[in-house]
Amino acid sequence: MKKRQVPEGAVTRLCDYLRVLTVLERRGQEKVASEEIGSWAGVKASQVRKDLSYFGEFGRRGMGYEVAGLRGHIQDILGVRRQRPTIVIGAGNLGSALARYTGFSAHGFQIVAIYDTDLGRVGQYLGSLMIEPLQALPTAVSRLKVEIALLTVPETAAQQVADFVIAQGVKAIVNFAPVLLSVPSDVNLRNVDLARELETLCFYLPGNEFLDLPPAAPDTES
Amino acid sequence: MKKRQVPEGAVTRLCDYLRVLTVLERRGQEKVASEEIGSWAGVKASQVRKDLSYFGEFGRRGMGYEVAGLRGHIQDILGVRRQRPTIVIGAGNLGSALARYTGFSAHGFQIVAIYDTDLGRVGQYLGSLMIEPLQALPTAVSRLKVEIALLTVPETAAQQVADFVIAQGVKAIVNFAPVLLSVPSDVNLRNVDLARELETLCFYLPGNEFLDLPPAAPDTES
Repeated sequence: MKKRQVPEGAVTRLCDYLRVLTVLERRGQEKVASEEIGSWAGVKASQVRKDLSYFGEFGRRGMGYEVAGLRGHIQDILGVRRQRPTIVIGAGNLGSALARYTGFSAHGFQIVAIYDTDLGRVGQYLGSLMIEPLQALPTAVSRLKVEIALLTVPETAAQQVADFVIAQGVKAIVNFAPVLLSVPSDVNLRNVDLARELETLCFYLPGNEFLDLPPAAPDTES
Repeated sequence: MKKRQVPEGAVTRLCDYLRVLTVLERRGQEKVASEEIGSWAGVKASQVRKDLSYFGEFGRRGMGYEVAGLRGHIQDILGVRRQRPTIVIGAGNLGSALARYTGFSAHGFQIVAIYDTDLGRVGQYLGSLMIEPLQALPTAVSRLKVEIALLTVPETAAQQVADFVIAQGVKAIVNFAPVLLSVPSDVNLRNVDLARELETLCFYLPGNEFLDLPPAAPDTES
C-alpha cells in the first residue's frame, strides 16, 4: 500500500485555512466559499480546493463549505483536536516564554514539563511548572507520554541535547537554535530560526543594492 | 532597468549557508567546497552554487570558497553587517523574551525599544529597556531610525497595531500572532507562527490516519 503523497506546502496552508476558519467561526459566519478562504490566506481559490481534495470531499459544488464543519475536519487532518504532551528543553528567555504561554493549548499542545541543565534555574517555577534537571527527562518521557520537544538551548548545545532527547524516544522536535541539526530519518524536525526570519526580511528592505542591481546578463536595452 | 529576480527560497537558503559558514569559521576552517556547505544545509552542491550565482562570482572553479570571505559576502548580500534598529510591540511573555534576547545583535538586529498598551507593564524594565506606552511610538520611529518592528501582541489586536506601526513609516514587520495580516504592498511582512509550526509537525507524527490512507486513485496493484 503506497503512502499518500501530500506536499508539505499543502499541510502548511491547511494551518492558514484553519486560522481563517477560526476567525470566521468567531464572527458567527456559517458558510464560506473557497474564494473567501483563499483571499484571506493569500492563495487562489483553486489552491484551496486542491489542498483540501487530498483529504476528501468537504463541500458541495457551488454551495461552499460549512465553517464549523470544515474547521473540525482540518483539525482532524492535522491531528490537533486532542492535547499533545509537549516539553520545553532550555529555561532561558525563550524557553520560559514558551512554557508560560497558555495559547498553545488552544492549538492542541500542552506544555507538561520544562528542563534545564543550569542548577541555578532548576527548582524555580514558571507558572505552575517547576524547572526540572535534564537528567530527570528519561523517566518522564514515558510517564508523561511526551510526543513533542521544543528545544530552546544555546546553539552550541543543540545537537547534543537533540541526540539525548531522541535517545529517550521523542520523535518530534522543534528547534529554536540558529543551527542546523542532524537527526535520524524517523524523527520529525522543524526549525524556527528567528534570526533567519529577520535576515530574510532584511534582504528585502529598501536600499539593498542586491535588490536594485541590473540583470547579470548583457544589457540588451535599445 | 529590470530588477533582479532572486527567488525567496534562495534568500532563505543564504541564511542557512551563513549559519554553516559561521560554524566552520569558529572551528578555524579556511576553505570549503559547495558540496560541504550543501551537505550541512541539506541541499545539493549545485543548489548552493546556483543560489550564490545570483549575486556574483565568489569562488574559483575547483578551488572552493574562502570561509571568511564568503561569510562576509553573504552578510553583505543580506544586509546584516550593520545594526538595524528594531522595536518590539507587545511586552507579554514572547515580547519580553525577544527584548531580553541579546543574540539578535550578532545577526545585525538591535532591539532599541519595547512598547505595550498595558499601563501595568509600562515603566517596568526588561534588561536595560523600559517598557514604553504605545502612544510614544510616533516620535520614536524617526528619532531611533526604527527599521523593523516585531509584533508580539494578541491576535485580536494584531491588525490594528500593524496599521498603527505602518502609519508611522515602519516598512518591515515580523508578526508573531497566529493571524494573517493585511499590509500595503510596500511593507515587508514575515509571519512567525509557532502554533503553525507545531500543527505542521503534528501532521507528520506517527498514527495520523491521513498519512496512512491508501491513494485515492483506484487500486491497480496486481
